[in-house]
Amino acid sequence: MRTLYHFWISPACRKVRLALDEKGLKFGLQIEKPWERRPNLLARNPAGEVPILVDENGAVLADSQAICEYLEETYEDVPLMAKDPIERAETRRLIAWFDHKFYREVTDNLVDEKIMKRLTKSGMPNTAAIRAGHHNIHYHLEYITYLVERRSWLAGEEYGLADIAAAAQLSSVDYLGDVPWDQHPAAKVWYSRAKSRPSFRGILGDNLPGMPAPKHYADLDF
Amino acid sequence: MRTLYHFWISPACRKVRLALDEKGLKFGLQIEKPWERRPNLLARNPAGEVPILVDENGAVLADSQAICEYLEETYEDVPLMAKDPIERAETRRLIAWFDHKFYREVTDNLVDEKIMKRLTKSGMPNTAAIRAGHHNIHYHLEYITYLVERRSWLAGEEYGLADIAAAAQLSSVDYLGDVPWDQHPAAKVWYSRAKSRPSFRGILGDNLPGMPAPKHYADLDF
Repeated sequence: MRTLYHFWISPACRKVRLALDEKGLKFGLQIEKPWERRPNLLARNPAGEVPILVDENGAVLADSQAICEYLEETYEDVPLMAKDPIERAETRRLIAWFDHKFYREVTDNLVDEKIMKRLTKSGMPNTAAIRAGHHNIHYHLEYITYLVERRSWLAGEEYGLADIAAAAQLSSVDYLGDVPWDQHPAAKVWYSRAKSRPSFRGILGDNLPGMPAPKHYADLDF
Repeated sequence: MRTLYHFWISPACRKVRLALDEKGLKFGLQIEKPWERRPNLLARNPAGEVPILVDENGAVLADSQAICEYLEETYEDVPLMAKDPIERAETRRLIAWFDHKFYREVTDNLVDEKIMKRLTKSGMPNTAAIRAGHHNIHYHLEYITYLVERRSWLAGEEYGLADIAAAAQLSSVDYLGDVPWDQHPAAKVWYSRAKSRPSFRGILGDNLPGMPAPKHYADLDF
């Protein structure tokens, strides 16, 4: 049985869930709270982070991008990147943008301050960080707007890993109700197209007891 | 003419220089100071970051890992990753470790505080960050030791992108003289093997006016 060790609000984990579902690969989910640093977690990934995928062949894979590249090389029936190396480089540039730049400038400031600090009991949210996250998200939604005014999807004409990386980050922030969709209608249209794909059902079904999602979170017509 | 826009102390830029040299690909270097945010930089990479590679075919590529994957797909004569998807996933896990975890825990705390703040005139070095960098580097040198006690190189039996990513980070920190090599002899042996490769000559020749490298930096028998 293929198993993904994950934590539900983590955008890196959501990225792998979306990629697996998009490729039609069945998998079980195991919740792993990275801050508990369980010996089993560290044995599977010495970085102490999720996602970790244990594939059917027993391979233990860590890091969301290493996992997605592995899935791309191993399960080729539903490709999530173009074949041309220059188009692939563009996809990977955008993946890095959302995995790292968006994460650092937005998700880390909002999701980590508002949810992770509460879950890990590591202090009060930093209001300056939250303000920065709310400020920075406009720049990223404008960049998404710029891209989708020129292309069908973020990296080109096909839905793929760049969209998945971006949607994974945004879905985590959207769980807080912190995405100003109405001020960025073109980005909203792109997200609603991504969200309507069957691969999105899993993460739209997430709900933390005591920390419910806002009403629009799972609504396809938000 | 293939051109790499880079900044000399940036580990991400050093990673691409090492990969290009290892593959025997000729390139010109153009210095780009990202903090000046020149219009030409932003036109080539809206993230405003280096490295940026303009390949002979005119393709403009940004993000060090997107560039390295492109080189791997386009110039196959000297592979820097194994063929097997599981081994490639292990290489990519380690690349992410050094590009992001090592960078965040070590390089950012030492190189950015000691050199970048001075160059960009953005305040005094944060002594708590520098202390954290000095503390964290031991953990990473121990992890390198763990790996090379089990394998010839970091990701397996061949020198490749995991070694390049790690050596790029360490070479930046080593320019400050801040790597405690003598306390980690096995990691030192690995680094001296990497450093002795012809591909390393370029970055060992770097020298900033007014901020000279320590004597051992370019010494192959340090």
